[in-house]
Amino acid sequence: MKYFARAITPNEAFFVRYHVFPIPLEVDLATWRLRITGRVERPLELTLDDLRTKFPRVAVTAVNQCSGNSRGRFTPRVLGGQWGDGAMGNAEWAGARLRDILTAAGVRQGAVQATFDGLDKPSFPSVPDFVKSLDVTRIMDDPDVLVAYEMNGKPLPMLNGYPARLVVPGWYATYWVKHLSDIEVIDHVFEKFWMKPAYRIPDNACGCVAPGTAPARTVPINRMTVRSFIGSPEGGSRVPTGRPVTMKGIAFDGGHGIQEVQVSVDGGTTWQAANLGADLGRYSFREWTFSWTPARPGRARVVVRAFNAIGESQGRQPLWNPAGYLRNVIEHVDLVVG
Amino acid sequence: MKYFARAITPNEAFFVRYHVFPIPLEVDLATWRLRITGRVERPLELTLDDLRTKFPRVAVTAVNQCSGNSRGRFTPRVLGGQWGDGAMGNAEWAGARLRDILTAAGVRQGAVQATFDGLDKPSFPSVPDFVKSLDVTRIMDDPDVLVAYEMNGKPLPMLNGYPARLVVPGWYATYWVKHLSDIEVIDHVFEKFWMKPAYRIPDNACGCVAPGTAPARTVPINRMTVRSFIGSPEGGSRVPTGRPVTMKGIAFDGGHGIQEVQVSVDGGTTWQAANLGADLGRYSFREWTFSWTPARPGRARVVVRAFNAIGESQGRQPLWNPAGYLRNVIEHVDLVVG
Repeated sequence: MKYFARAITPNEAFFVRYHVFPIPLEVDLATWRLRITGRVERPLELTLDDLRTKFPRVAVTAVNQCSGNSRGRFTPRVLGGQWGDGAMGNAEWAGARLRDILTAAGVRQGAVQATFDGLDKPSFPSVPDFVKSLDVTRIMDDPDVLVAYEMNGKPLPMLNGYPARLVVPGWYATYWVKHLSDIEVIDHVFEKFWMKPAYRIPDNACGCVAPGTAPARTVPINRMTVRSFIGSPEGGSRVPTGRPVTMKGIAFDGGHGIQEVQVSVDGGTTWQAANLGADLGRYSFREWTFSWTPARPGRARVVVRAFNAIGESQGRQPLWNPAGYLRNVIEHVDLVVG
Repeated sequence: MKYFARAITPNEAFFVRYHVFPIPLEVDLATWRLRITGRVERPLELTLDDLRTKFPRVAVTAVNQCSGNSRGRFTPRVLGGQWGDGAMGNAEWAGARLRDILTAAGVRQGAVQATFDGLDKPSFPSVPDFVKSLDVTRIMDDPDVLVAYEMNGKPLPMLNGYPARLVVPGWYATYWVKHLSDIEVIDHVFEKFWMKPAYRIPDNACGCVAPGTAPARTVPINRMTVRSFIGSPEGGSRVPTGRPVTMKGIAFDGGHGIQEVQVSVDGGTTWQAANLGADLGRYSFREWTFSWTPARPGRARVVVRAFNAIGESQGRQPLWNPAGYLRNVIEHVDLVVG
């Protein structure tokens, strides 16, 4: 968890996840283009240089989290990659606003969604190409949806989507299409494999159902839930009696912004406000610190809980769904004092 | 606030709110009928006796809260009745399941919503009749949506909707149509006055916009937000130093159920778990108590915050919308110690 005691995740420590293979290991900028087609007035073919020079450069600090982050902790077990808590990272992404690109192409009447396809193409015909979609209203309303070409001030690393990837702040990584090559504006809701049946959650307020059951109706996964983690000390650490120990960690949510973090050193009976670090924006990790002077030797369960600006927090019981998405149960570490 | 230190609100203390006048002051059971028409196989005309005898009697304890409850506390001010916090109550409602009634009528293919009309009819032609609607899927999925004829074990009082009213647990009172007389199953989304433009909220996760602004898109108001109140002692009370004082109150939400209540006696810096009272169901007020022995004379701000089963809580800043709906900011009382 050491990378989650600080706000920005280094590029080399950022998680990597692909859906189809082979994955592109090099991209020739001489031939790479971002094509915008479909229900637009002026179809476009943009080079990376076009992206950099024809549109304002915009930066947003945002968490990119796999929908299945922490999936391995669900009971009952769920299918899919058995991630621990590492499938998340926070970076400053910079690029062109997607709405500026679509405006340049001229969205026509009746446009409902845009679809996004990257260079990763399945080698077996039975595997559906990885294509995602977003509502045109979301794109045009939200100045933070980017086609990013930089990550923490450097060109996008190959495994993080070079030369350009979609950045959809507040939403799960499944929408952050890498090696983006094709945007098509369409007049309907896209329902091919990776939007339906894949990456869907129960259609209710919690995205959850009773463990072991199936939902009656589903919707595409979207906004991230509130989460908070203790980055330091790590679970199992020994801390001295009678001397202050500084605990550190991060919290984040789907874009309302972290307003408050509480820490409990008695397993969740009494809680105190943690100190919040610098506000890097509503989509970013928010660092927190908390100083604790343990009074007595023994075991201690340290618990953390965050609140976003609209009052959403984390519950004591994990919420379950068949794919193991949206996990945001209150987290803890057990320490040995003395 | 004295009625909000206990779980069940007496019938005579329950708030009353109508939309159109004149209101019915008596109903003749010899002529009153509940008519089910529209997209059904068998239109029905039910007497109160039919409701009581032809369908299983089902009881649910549920909060009925006006959408504009606490509206008077918003800054900037909003239009509408300037309620304090009194426009809410909790009762045991008993009646027939709406889905049993619709099943008896036989919902036909293509049914989308049902509309609900009561005996209160406007006397001026310029005032739209008060008609609300619900999705047929909600009605058929939810065994707790009732046509109620009893309230706390007695016939429904006249001002609470005699002889029968719709009970939509977890949703605001605007759907709980009184003196219910007509249910029509329709093949589209109903958008007459009291669904659109009235009783709508911003179409986003918080139902909120920046104070003083208007939302771009709206949806009908629906599920209630998490709230908690201190019923006793009342604000401004004097409590002795060095002797325990028992604080009491209630918490509720839109139907996930209250999982936890925290109390702070220092204005929100440190928090402790309150004791939860009996669980009367996920739609009910949940009583809480908290014992506090003030150590020092002076002023004390007591603050309460609730969490529901999916981790939703209350924020420190009120969320604003033009109609003053969904208020759920953290509440406090100021006490004098000594």
